[in-house]
Amino acid sequence: MIRFQTDNPTQGPRLGRLETPHGVVRTPVFCPVATQGTIKAMLPEEVRDLGGEAILVNTYHLYLRPGHDVVRRHGGLHKFMNWSGAIITDSGGYQVFSMADLRKVRDEGVEFQSHLDGSRHLLTPERAIEIQEALGADIVMALDECPPYPSPRQNLEEAVTRTSLWARRCKAALHSDQALFGIVQGGIEPELRRRSASELAETGFPGYALGGLCVGEPKSATWEMVDLVLECLPAESPRYLMGVGTPEDLLEGIARGMDIFDCIIPTRHARTGILYTRTGPLKILHQQNRDDARPIDPTCSCYACRHYTRAYLRHLHAAHEILAARLGTIHNLHFYFTLMREARDAIGSGAWTSFKSRFLDGIRGTAC
Amino acid sequence: MIRFQTDNPTQGPRLGRLETPHGVVRTPVFCPVATQGTIKAMLPEEVRDLGGEAILVNTYHLYLRPGHDVVRRHGGLHKFMNWSGAIITDSGGYQVFSMADLRKVRDEGVEFQSHLDGSRHLLTPERAIEIQEALGADIVMALDECPPYPSPRQNLEEAVTRTSLWARRCKAALHSDQALFGIVQGGIEPELRRRSASELAETGFPGYALGGLCVGEPKSATWEMVDLVLECLPAESPRYLMGVGTPEDLLEGIARGMDIFDCIIPTRHARTGILYTRTGPLKILHQQNRDDARPIDPTCSCYACRHYTRAYLRHLHAAHEILAARLGTIHNLHFYFTLMREARDAIGSGAWTSFKSRFLDGIRGTAC
Repeated sequence: MIRFQTDNPTQGPRLGRLETPHGVVRTPVFCPVATQGTIKAMLPEEVRDLGGEAILVNTYHLYLRPGHDVVRRHGGLHKFMNWSGAIITDSGGYQVFSMADLRKVRDEGVEFQSHLDGSRHLLTPERAIEIQEALGADIVMALDECPPYPSPRQNLEEAVTRTSLWARRCKAALHSDQALFGIVQGGIEPELRRRSASELAETGFPGYALGGLCVGEPKSATWEMVDLVLECLPAESPRYLMGVGTPEDLLEGIARGMDIFDCIIPTRHARTGILYTRTGPLKILHQQNRDDARPIDPTCSCYACRHYTRAYLRHLHAAHEILAARLGTIHNLHFYFTLMREARDAIGSGAWTSFKSRFLDGIRGTAC
Repeated sequence: MIRFQTDNPTQGPRLGRLETPHGVVRTPVFCPVATQGTIKAMLPEEVRDLGGEAILVNTYHLYLRPGHDVVRRHGGLHKFMNWSGAIITDSGGYQVFSMADLRKVRDEGVEFQSHLDGSRHLLTPERAIEIQEALGADIVMALDECPPYPSPRQNLEEAVTRTSLWARRCKAALHSDQALFGIVQGGIEPELRRRSASELAETGFPGYALGGLCVGEPKSATWEMVDLVLECLPAESPRYLMGVGTPEDLLEGIARGMDIFDCIIPTRHARTGILYTRTGPLKILHQQNRDDARPIDPTCSCYACRHYTRAYLRHLHAAHEILAARLGTIHNLHFYFTLMREARDAIGSGAWTSFKSRFLDGIRGTAC
């Protein structure tokens, strides 16, 4: 069970306190993604030490490998992966709709073939809950239907109907004290987004997520959807903007009152050599870094910036060394967690607007 | 400059104290290999905390990428890679003879093409010293000619002649206070090994290495060569058995009075899922580990064994996660460093023979 308190149960940037069975999470919070039960390249203690309080783990991946039965027998995800903080699991729906082969959606559930071995599976709302109960996260997500962007209105409408139906079945199926969040769908159709949010709010959940955003639609539409969805959700509940995002998107989401975010960007970019700085991203493999004795960001206090030069990091990336991924991930997560901490401080001290402008001015050109 | 003191300047197992500009190294010592300027998957502090006092870095790789000029301008290897302990660099010869394309050896040096981009290079004794001076290791190696095993006697003889010539030229070329070791060649020809060792001893070096062993020859020949070479070298100097080896080989080398070892085995095996235990190696990817809640080795106190199950490690390996390499490397290096510490303790307390038998009895079947 979770408890959520916020200083501002309306719209606009807000501070919150999310109590979970695995510690208090201060919101707005950014959750790095442990796709397969590990934040790539990191020890769990390192993520914790950098400021991580909650992570997202992908149900689809752990269900296929090693199997949720294995994780359950080993005491659940927290114990299996040695993570003492809060965990959110998604429902598996997003990966089924974006990665698996040969999907067939019907009201019962979604049939798919594993991207690993082609084996056939049926994911129903009840099954999504059963798997997430076995994994044992603090927050679990209802199964939703995620149409790609763009999709015909008819498909979006059916997805909203099915998402509401599935959310109710997930709620009925849940026997644990895990906190179940509903997920709002509806593409960039204002009416469908409002309908989806209202139907979920009527069913009633301890928290709500916005799915299917930042998937290629114009940014103005993203934030329009966020604004109107928030009007339809109970303001005292935590709000989770799934799969978001870049530093700019985090700030835009925070500005509107979103509390929870997750994204693979900082860890994935780290592994491909895109490193965040206060003046925009640094592509470490560029030739100009070959002989550069400066750290990634001279204003950064992370372990990587305290001990290594751009020249060394470029060498590690060019040589495909694991240490390149480690140091880059340390740096990028430090950047993200620092950004979130500063954002919370700015909200708390009434300096939000100037903080946001100053940060965005600094990184002009960071957009992905 | 180094200083070496040993309790037993004859043959048989011995304890030593190797003072270097980067700390005291207790011998017998195992040096993990930082091929490209990083112990793969590890932070330097982690290697240090596990008990690492000295590492080997490959000159060939750093010469080609990022270039020894870059390393020199960044303050040398210790600073570039953030390693505060002792460093040995090899001469580049071994990699030129085993990895590079289109080698041409003549008395002047060895011409080769880079395995990275096919560029042509000439490695002379003088050049090997110049590169190693730029890298700035505590101990540097003379350029030697390493014939493959097996090679005709004539080739081995020429290699010994050239190796002695090149060692003298390396000594003459050295202008730094780095400690230059000569390398004994000669295949498994007793007479050539004796000649090589005697010629190097006559030239005089602060330490001596045995090259070209454990490269496929029968193990009985390996240890016969070690025994007879040691008779020809000044016993008060440190002795380095290059590229060795498995835990069994380390113990055999220690038993004969070798002081320094290096090998990629523990770190490479870690990345392919071969993990050392006191009862022999564990192949973590085996199906039988899928649901095994035990640590790699229940008698081990390393971080990986304290926090993770075989089931989780198998999952990480199956999913090609970087954390698999990290945890495996932590474990295998812990195993190696613990073995060396216990070996030193056993020598010190007069319990060497029983220690060696007990260890070898335990791991029956570990041979690679």
